[in-house]
Amino acid sequence: MVRKGILFVVSGSSGVGKGTINKAVLEKVSDIRMSVSATTRPKREGEVEGRDYFFVSPDEFAARVKNGDFLEYAKVYSHMYGTPRQFVEENMQKGYDLLLEIDIQGAMKVKEQMPQGVFIFIQPPSREVLAQRIHGRGKDSMDSIRARLAAYEQEMAMRKHYDYVVVNDDLEEAVYKVQAIIVAERCRVRI
Amino acid sequence: MVRKGILFVVSGSSGVGKGTINKAVLEKVSDIRMSVSATTRPKREGEVEGRDYFFVSPDEFAARVKNGDFLEYAKVYSHMYGTPRQFVEENMQKGYDLLLEIDIQGAMKVKEQMPQGVFIFIQPPSREVLAQRIHGRGKDSMDSIRARLAAYEQEMAMRKHYDYVVVNDDLEEAVYKVQAIIVAERCRVRI
Repeated sequence: MVRKGILFVVSGSSGVGKGTINKAVLEKVSDIRMSVSATTRPKREGEVEGRDYFFVSPDEFAARVKNGDFLEYAKVYSHMYGTPRQFVEENMQKGYDLLLEIDIQGAMKVKEQMPQGVFIFIQPPSREVLAQRIHGRGKDSMDSIRARLAAYEQEMAMRKHYDYVVVNDDLEEAVYKVQAIIVAERCRVRI
Repeated sequence: MVRKGILFVVSGSSGVGKGTINKAVLEKVSDIRMSVSATTRPKREGEVEGRDYFFVSPDEFAARVKNGDFLEYAKVYSHMYGTPRQFVEENMQKGYDLLLEIDIQGAMKVKEQMPQGVFIFIQPPSREVLAQRIHGRGKDSMDSIRARLAAYEQEMAMRKHYDYVVVNDDLEEAVYKVQAIIVAERCRVRI
């Protein structure tokens, strides 16, 4: 019997660095694959079907949504993005661990469908550091600063829905921690 | 509020290499301490009270047992050994993670008292490798080989009571995995 793969969901708000972390983790960890999303946005130069995205028409995307083919989907600007259930499940059945990079809302939807996944929250540095960074730029209005900090508090409240929290204070350390979580979860007793 | 320490219980049958693994882990991981046992056996040259063991008289040991001062205790040959509850709890309250090295029976007793601990089973290489090693020595009777292999099967059945299993096939890799488990558990969301 093949060992079933583990779904690692690496999640956080935009700009927190989860993409950079995942890229580094992919290079360091063997036998792990990136989950590939479906999208309605046009293919850009250099992008490869099935590696970067599964490119589908708006009609096909809508049909798949209706069919329950996505673990989650969302509209970003004017395009649809979704996580294909079949891609994830087939890879896991074959024993491959998967890395899924996704925002907080998406992660919560995936968790409903795949509670056995390992959910990792990438946390920005402390509120103080965040505030300093915003003030440091000196070009945000007081309102926008207040809004950013309020969003930060809301985000922090979501941590309890995750299995792990990794603070992205130092990139190298954050990568090391996500890598350690993968190694540890591969040793975990699943009954 | 100080973060509470985590109790890491590294356990397995005798000869599996848990002592060697723990020594290496202690050198590599910061802010972790070894749990110190109490014993009635006489102090040997070079041993330091409170570092290697807490040396106590048989009467004192018996009184402490009666008082419920041990998370677990056992007789090994003619001496008593026990894990002092106070030492473990005080260190954890102070925020120190603890490494406790113990046999399988002891680990199960500790788990009853401290289910929040992280239980790591150090597994010997496969049954085949074990059988080869025993046969290779060529000095064990068939009965003793059968007994060893039966014990191995019993041991394997205990894995499900642990949080993690680390196969000690390659020492360096086993150390790396235990280290990864500690790093990961420090990122774990505890609610």
